[in-house]
Amino acid sequence: MVIVMAPEATNDDIEAVVDRVSRAGGEAFVSRGVSRTIIGLVGDVERFTTLNLQGMPGVADVVRVSTPYKLVSRENHPARSTVTVRGVPIGPDTVTLIAGPCAVETPEQTLEAAKMAKAAGATLLRGGAYKPRTSPYAFQGLGEHGLRILAEVREETGLPIVTEVVDPHDVELVASYADMLQVGTRNAQNFSLLQALGEAGKPVLLKRGMTATIEEWLMAAEYIAQRGNLNIVLCERGIRTYERATRNTLDISAVPVAQRLSHLPVVIDPSHSGGRRDLVLPLARAAIAVGADGLLVDVHPRPEEALCDGPQALVHEDLPELAAILRDFPPLLNRKPVTADEAALTTA
Amino acid sequence: MVIVMAPEATNDDIEAVVDRVSRAGGEAFVSRGVSRTIIGLVGDVERFTTLNLQGMPGVADVVRVSTPYKLVSRENHPARSTVTVRGVPIGPDTVTLIAGPCAVETPEQTLEAAKMAKAAGATLLRGGAYKPRTSPYAFQGLGEHGLRILAEVREETGLPIVTEVVDPHDVELVASYADMLQVGTRNAQNFSLLQALGEAGKPVLLKRGMTATIEEWLMAAEYIAQRGNLNIVLCERGIRTYERATRNTLDISAVPVAQRLSHLPVVIDPSHSGGRRDLVLPLARAAIAVGADGLLVDVHPRPEEALCDGPQALVHEDLPELAAILRDFPPLLNRKPVTADEAALTTA
Amino acid sequence: MVIVMAPEATNDDIEAVVDRVSRAGGEAFVSRGVSRTIIGLVGDVERFTTLNLQGMPGVADVVRVSTPYKLVSRENHPARSTVTVRGVPIGPDTVTLIAGPCAVETPEQTLEAAKMAKAAGATLLRGGAYKPRTSPYAFQGLGEHGLRILAEVREETGLPIVTEVVDPHDVELVASYADMLQVGTRNAQNFSLLQALGEAGKPVLLKRGMTATIEEWLMAAEYIAQRGNLNIVLCERGIRTYERATRNTLDISAVPVAQRLSHLPVVIDPSHSGGRRDLVLPLARAAIAVGADGLLVDVHPRPEEALCDGPQALVHEDLPELAAILRDFPPLLNRKPVTADEAALTTA
Amino acid sequence: MVIVMAPEATNDDIEAVVDRVSRAGGEAFVSRGVSRTIIGLVGDVERFTTLNLQGMPGVADVVRVSTPYKLVSRENHPARSTVTVRGVPIGPDTVTLIAGPCAVETPEQTLEAAKMAKAAGATLLRGGAYKPRTSPYAFQGLGEHGLRILAEVREETGLPIVTEVVDPHDVELVASYADMLQVGTRNAQNFSLLQALGEAGKPVLLKRGMTATIEEWLMAAEYIAQRGNLNIVLCERGIRTYERATRNTLDISAVPVAQRLSHLPVVIDPSHSGGRRDLVLPLARAAIAVGADGLLVDVHPRPEEALCDGPQALVHEDLPELAAILRDFPPLLNRKPVTADEAALTTA
Repeated sequence: MVIVMAPEATNDDIEAVVDRVSRAGGEAFVSRGVSRTIIGLVGDVERFTTLNLQGMPGVADVVRVSTPYKLVSRENHPARSTVTVRGVPIGPDTVTLIAGPCAVETPEQTLEAAKMAKAAGATLLRGGAYKPRTSPYAFQGLGEHGLRILAEVREETGLPIVTEVVDPHDVELVASYADMLQVGTRNAQNFSLLQALGEAGKPVLLKRGMTATIEEWLMAAEYIAQRGNLNIVLCERGIRTYERATRNTLDISAVPVAQRLSHLPVVIDPSHSGGRRDLVLPLARAAIAVGADGLLVDVHPRPEEALCDGPQALVHEDLPELAAILRDFPPLLNRKPVTADEAALTTA
Repeated sequence: MVIVMAPEATNDDIEAVVDRVSRAGGEAFVSRGVSRTIIGLVGDVERFTTLNLQGMPGVADVVRVSTPYKLVSRENHPARSTVTVRGVPIGPDTVTLIAGPCAVETPEQTLEAAKMAKAAGATLLRGGAYKPRTSPYAFQGLGEHGLRILAEVREETGLPIVTEVVDPHDVELVASYADMLQVGTRNAQNFSLLQALGEAGKPVLLKRGMTATIEEWLMAAEYIAQRGNLNIVLCERGIRTYERATRNTLDISAVPVAQRLSHLPVVIDPSHSGGRRDLVLPLARAAIAVGADGLLVDVHPRPEEALCDGPQALVHEDLPELAAILRDFPPLLNRKPVTADEAALTTA
Repeated sequence: MVIVMAPEATNDDIEAVVDRVSRAGGEAFVSRGVSRTIIGLVGDVERFTTLNLQGMPGVADVVRVSTPYKLVSRENHPARSTVTVRGVPIGPDTVTLIAGPCAVETPEQTLEAAKMAKAAGATLLRGGAYKPRTSPYAFQGLGEHGLRILAEVREETGLPIVTEVVDPHDVELVASYADMLQVGTRNAQNFSLLQALGEAGKPVLLKRGMTATIEEWLMAAEYIAQRGNLNIVLCERGIRTYERATRNTLDISAVPVAQRLSHLPVVIDPSHSGGRRDLVLPLARAAIAVGADGLLVDVHPRPEEALCDGPQALVHEDLPELAAILRDFPPLLNRKPVTADEAALTTA
Repeated sequence: MVIVMAPEATNDDIEAVVDRVSRAGGEAFVSRGVSRTIIGLVGDVERFTTLNLQGMPGVADVVRVSTPYKLVSRENHPARSTVTVRGVPIGPDTVTLIAGPCAVETPEQTLEAAKMAKAAGATLLRGGAYKPRTSPYAFQGLGEHGLRILAEVREETGLPIVTEVVDPHDVELVASYADMLQVGTRNAQNFSLLQALGEAGKPVLLKRGMTATIEEWLMAAEYIAQRGNLNIVLCERGIRTYERATRNTLDISAVPVAQRLSHLPVVIDPSHSGGRRDLVLPLARAAIAVGADGLLVDVHPRPEEALCDGPQALVHEDLPELAAILRDFPPLLNRKPVTADEAALTTA
């Protein structure tokens, strides 16, 4: 059950609701959004219906939810949401390109990749400073030094930063540099991390676990939402199947399915899905065509030297075609690509 | 190893090649296409290179192939092929819509579904008379009676027929009615059936096994090709994974992967992939965008009464949007939708 | 709904039931077993309950079944069944070893492998004359010549023969040589083949499809049962998953699950499950321990020369340990291994 | 490359090796075991071979390792290891039963479950105080209060405690109560947590990720080993597949495969694998038969009231059979069950 508070509801109104629910043996999770607060209730729903919550001051609506997730569900919030990252929108009317290097390696490589991203039409810069790697002997990222490089590149290019965080106790540090915090596929059920992100005050890009069901993915989002952060963008990045021709199997159907179940924006990562450079552009076209709200794409000036996932990065000569896809396909879906000017305008 | 014969090669030339290979302990599989004949060799490749096959009369080229499939591989035949079904092309320059009811139930239902298919832009009619069903207690199709209904509907609408065959010993009968023979997902490794289709003299629509790798799918095509039939269209229809929100998981990456490995056309079935009507149009858009050469779509006048797979059939009100997708998306990929007039023209 | 006829029911009694069901718009499938006949009804169950079938002559019992399979279900037939192959039992009180070469290659190799099988305690000989192979260029088996070799080896060793059939139109021929007909994993949904086996009059070894659910496996058995053959042994042989360390993933839980749902015996093939010789004996131990009714094991005198699946065949030096497993483990489950003497005794 | 130090090697010897490797541009990871220290080297192996490491003081052996994991590999350490948890061995000569409630709920429930565990032959008590749950609205465990309950129950029953930790920053706290720290399936690639456990000074029970390959599982173990903790027990608990009859698919082959690749002990959790009480005992038998070094089993006095995973817990009436399995099966594999007396003896 979800209590939607009116925009003018006071803290006292909210506390009164929480208090009444607690006395009835339930738990209340308060999510404070920009314009209004909603409260997720856990416990005996039948009992809650006897509490006359609808009649309490500041309560706009009481919604019964039958899915196991509540705050992120469309039952609870029928209109699809737009998440804004430092002025750049990700939502149902636009197609947003997030691009950059898989890993931050040097200031030069990062700057060059950011310029490539911009040339392709990106309005957000991705780049990993903390890399969760299957092998303890693989490159693990530059850590805070990488974050500083990203901040400098943002300064120079104007592109807001999306970067991964892997430990709940790094969330504050990473959030002090980044504009959007990414949860990687291996941490999709790292509940401590998800809860920390719920309190981070920054938008979150939540990658689907490589073997998560769509329901588990939405439950992971619910962990973030439950701690007060509804600025979540879901990212489909391929799932693990028996097929070996591709690194993962892009579950493209997951986009319309998740958009029907949840109001959160959904983007596709065509780079990690296939793990092959030759598949990135076809999958990017398919992603926009199926209705994704954005793309997350690896670019690298010299993929053969990349410390991580080089084989899937786009190179300079691929950029014009990516830019053309971003220009031509969204209008067929009544969307427009987000452009740098627009993003700047929104920020101003 | 594959021997490509010149267009003017005689039967004697072909037999001479087969003979020389046999004497060297190898086997030679002859595939006679419309314009030329190719011969796949099995055995000791090193030995074959000593036979001076290149110098024999009528031999245009000798190609060494390193993939486990030969005749269907792009190594052997770099240009992508077009398969023509009674004048209707399926290939790299076009997008072809094949539509119709999952199962033929009555003459009225079939005719009405065919008219729906045509209204959406279809130039080929699908419809099952033999239905392989998981349960022996489910509707198994009308058999030859269903084939006669399809033939009457072809008469009335002008749409050539695509229909499934499930038993090698029915191939001749089904081929006497149908314009294209379909192999269903459950028969993707029914090698007797595949071999019978290799000799059927009709184009084949080969669905991917629901748990076949892309390589196994191409090997299934090779079984058909090896018996002399290269008029094969591959159909991706979703694979089995752990995800339960959809009936199968559409492996959209399989289209560019298969097109890179094989010269055969590849189409997508967005109806069986998701098993949900609400996913058919988004997946149809994605299919064209990723580069599929065509679509295979279920339509039904009254899906709630369908004897098979009703929940995934498009209904009347979906047709304008499907027609619009077919009109608007192909040009972005430098393709054009096949239209009825054109198809008629080609036939004439 | 299933009608269980009394042992003394006449053909007229049976026809009367079929007739009454047909008039009510239903279908009746008659399965004649050794001691009694049962009739599976398909159609409107509510309607059937009004027909007073229980009161008809020769009817012993009317059972409502809620699973999608009926004749093979334990709801319908609570006691677990024993299937007897030329005197050799496979069932709940015993552990039966079926062993032999994956493929029949020569008379010598087959005879030597049969002697190996016997030395390990096998009472049935497996060996493939028709091999369904992923590649059309791989060894496809010796066909009828292979069947003749098997018959000669049976003559010499006394071991009844289990061999695969891949085409419905070969069933009669293969049945004229073999004592038990095997359905391979790739044909698990080849419904024409399953139906032909329902009428073959020989016991069937039904391998699970490599991506079949347990329910689909039982439905495949139902196809056979529905045509009158309940002498079916289920064989778990590994399923397709993402794990690549083994050829397939042995789903050992499938044995107790299938035994709970169906009365049919269930055996395990530890050779094809792992595809690795070093796993065969550990998996054989686990198979008996979990409660399997038998084992299907590849042996080969010279695996390095095998034309099919050599890497998984046991060799001479493995046989004493296999024999010891077969001797030591069954008693812990209150079972006894079937021995050659016993089998002979039963036949006599 | 791995450097095995002699038992008598000094700290100075170790530092000298680390120093020489560092100067050559490599990284050296020191793992101090009870009897000896080993050093894993990362970097240019060809370069290392020129450093004459074999000749340095205190170096017993230099081993080249070709697997991606090193310290946990059997290439590096051919003999299988025994891990001892407060005197209770888990290793190649024994079968160890770890049992208890899935979650600690109350002192009474925990004590009663511990007594059940003991009655079945358990010598280690499992019980979760921190529960990672898919839904944020599900019971998340009692936290430190649960740890205190476990400590009291250990006091009363003498059973050492195995309990899960989910956040790297809780490791120290949990280690102050527990005798063995468990990593759950959802944290199998939570690398911060794994690294923290590498420094925890307590044995670790590492569950396989529900979609981890065996190689990824061993890599996760390598993360722990690399920080100096080689007291790791691997636990197979079922993987995610398409089959829905069981909660997960027990990959029983993973036991012999992992034991061949790694020297670490491997146990099986038959409770979470199937998720069904009726499968626990058959799978427990199979686990011992395949060669597992132990079992991890859920028991609960009143599963119908359990806050977590009740349907899979064994109840009082199952205990005699579990005890009998533990008594009868290990001798067939030349192992003996660990008994409480023995464990006590070892501790004393």
